[in-house]
Amino acid sequence: MAVKLKGNACIGQSGGPTVVINQSLVGAVLEARKHDEIEGFLGARHGVQGIMDEDFVDLFNVPDATLEKIAATPSAALGSVRLKPGRDECEKIFKVFQKHNVRYFFYIGGDDSSKTAHIVNTLAEEAQYEFRTFHIPKTIDNDLMENDHTPGYGSAARFVASAVMGDDLDNRSIPGIKVDIIMGRNAGWLTAASVLGRTNPDDGPHLVYLPEVNVPMQKFLGDVEQVFKARGRCVVAVSEGLRDENGRIWAERLAEESEADLQSDAFGHFQLSGTGALADYLTARIKAAIAGKKKLRIRGDTFGYLQRSFAGFASPVDQAEARQVGTDAVRYACVGDVDGSVTLKREEGSGYRTYTEVVELEAVAGKCRSVPAEFITPDENNITDAFVEYALPLTGGLPEIGHL
Amino acid sequence: MAVKLKGNACIGQSGGPTVVINQSLVGAVLEARKHDEIEGFLGARHGVQGIMDEDFVDLFNVPDATLEKIAATPSAALGSVRLKPGRDECEKIFKVFQKHNVRYFFYIGGDDSSKTAHIVNTLAEEAQYEFRTFHIPKTIDNDLMENDHTPGYGSAARFVASAVMGDDLDNRSIPGIKVDIIMGRNAGWLTAASVLGRTNPDDGPHLVYLPEVNVPMQKFLGDVEQVFKARGRCVVAVSEGLRDENGRIWAERLAEESEADLQSDAFGHFQLSGTGALADYLTARIKAAIAGKKKLRIRGDTFGYLQRSFAGFASPVDQAEARQVGTDAVRYACVGDVDGSVTLKREEGSGYRTYTEVVELEAVAGKCRSVPAEFITPDENNITDAFVEYALPLTGGLPEIGHL
Repeated sequence: MAVKLKGNACIGQSGGPTVVINQSLVGAVLEARKHDEIEGFLGARHGVQGIMDEDFVDLFNVPDATLEKIAATPSAALGSVRLKPGRDECEKIFKVFQKHNVRYFFYIGGDDSSKTAHIVNTLAEEAQYEFRTFHIPKTIDNDLMENDHTPGYGSAARFVASAVMGDDLDNRSIPGIKVDIIMGRNAGWLTAASVLGRTNPDDGPHLVYLPEVNVPMQKFLGDVEQVFKARGRCVVAVSEGLRDENGRIWAERLAEESEADLQSDAFGHFQLSGTGALADYLTARIKAAIAGKKKLRIRGDTFGYLQRSFAGFASPVDQAEARQVGTDAVRYACVGDVDGSVTLKREEGSGYRTYTEVVELEAVAGKCRSVPAEFITPDENNITDAFVEYALPLTGGLPEIGHL
Repeated sequence: MAVKLKGNACIGQSGGPTVVINQSLVGAVLEARKHDEIEGFLGARHGVQGIMDEDFVDLFNVPDATLEKIAATPSAALGSVRLKPGRDECEKIFKVFQKHNVRYFFYIGGDDSSKTAHIVNTLAEEAQYEFRTFHIPKTIDNDLMENDHTPGYGSAARFVASAVMGDDLDNRSIPGIKVDIIMGRNAGWLTAASVLGRTNPDDGPHLVYLPEVNVPMQKFLGDVEQVFKARGRCVVAVSEGLRDENGRIWAERLAEESEADLQSDAFGHFQLSGTGALADYLTARIKAAIAGKKKLRIRGDTFGYLQRSFAGFASPVDQAEARQVGTDAVRYACVGDVDGSVTLKREEGSGYRTYTEVVELEAVAGKCRSVPAEFITPDENNITDAFVEYALPLTGGLPEIGHL
């Protein structure tokens, strides 16, 4: 029987928040209370930044009722951070871990966070500091390797699907052309979710463009014109990471061409969200190409941060799964000398059931899971039924609507 | 006892849709079935346009189960229209009414719709065509005279409040400056609703700007800087109808200065929604004024059409009230020779209860109910508790959240 590694645990949250990231936090805390090898549980404010600053919350001291409220609250209750710690910062982190006898480190986040967990773990091994690291998956982007899907995605997909359902009904009421820009820089999972509420053949979105596909502007405009001519209206779902014929991100190209002063974060990403520029550009191009002198209603919306933060509309399936990955991370860490990333898997066969597994941190870190070809229609401007079958259960169901 | 006016009824929907506009439609149809003076019920597709085109749906032929599904569906099930009929068009409408023996006309809409109903009614009187017209109120803008509030507003307020709750939590997780642009060209009711989810003193939005107040750019930038310096973050709710120091709408000014080709509708309104220009402009000004060379996270979101169309998140209170005004319009019309606008009133005293009344169409048409001074703080950049007391019940309650 393995010797129990006794000491304190530390947990942090990192990257763009989701509406269920606190479910994972609360799952870990409630599970840790059951394991006597975890003597205390430190919550690091703003992820690795909080560790370096020794800015901790005593999580074992938080009452259950408060924890349950926090679990249902969107965004990172501990605060998040976008910081990839370098060598100096990691040494600082180890000193803090040693000082506080931290032997269990849990980091809830996306791809960037699994990278961070991986670096910290590698340095811990070099320093021969005995501890266990677990990455707990979280991202609305659904782009983590080794996962059937990621906690956070189901709720964001539910939001996007309901938003486009309503938007399509609005576009029926007062017909025109509508462009909706949806989050997802490198993977189109969330943009694909725009189709999940379709029930009738003429329901929108009528066109869907993912970053997995290069889209020449002439094809885009031609597609829109064709749908509009056939139906008298057109709803288009476009990823913020929409790429031109050479694979360049349109929003970045626009930013350079207009010499706009876009911000980039510590990981070198351009800012795509928090600006309406792409929607305004695409509606202007459509207007110039299609509307001509004719009066035509053309609008663009950028769904923005609501997709990852909207309160009171989480998927119950997503909530339960986010709780589970947090719970299981602690269970795995207490079983024995193992590090890794908790992953969410789907059971084979009929019905929808999931379970978790542990994989090596390296298997998740630094890689992006794209939408596979089978989920994109052959003409590369729409989404297949196979995707709907895959993604609909994650939303926990969508509102039912009626037509005259 | 009054002689019953027997004949057919006609109903239309007009203006920007809401998520409960079909509740009013269904309320009217279900009530009309109980009155033998209403022999048939025509639903006009796309409002007065459908009347002129004789494009009707037989609403008495729609099964109850379908009606109930439609009631829960956002946006106008009959289709909407933005058209202010002139003399020629109204004559066309009367011919159609006479041809189809329409003696009851119900028009669900906002201020523009009450104007339309008023014009149609006046022309009917001139033509000595005996019938009854009722305007049924609807607008997310909450700006109709004579109403305590308007059906459609409670659900839009619920959406905006939940969106800003989530956005404020997101801004806590990763601090910075965030600008949210909210619908409402001439009245700030919906922008004011951004505060309804605040529970702690440091909850955002920290600044709120309504179209009722002229805001010099220097004051706006100074306010943001002050909050940001004090708190290290700042969430700002801004009406799309934000006005400069001379009372000019900023978005219109921007459009002219940039020679952007904004569209205007039949009522001469500039397009404010469906573009991210104002948010992008304000964040650029904040960046230039405050951030300087310092790296600062500044983002802008424009909530757009989701505010009036998002599926599955209606206020139950709003749903019930929208049903009631539709039901009562038919009741009033069948009582005797009376025309007018159904209005929603609130009972005096403790608790929240509403009832309806009939007012003259002229009392509602062509006027805009602004947010009164008592709901705006003296420094004109925030909202008072008196507003929260007024508006919170309309949302049917907001999600509960927890903090560490």
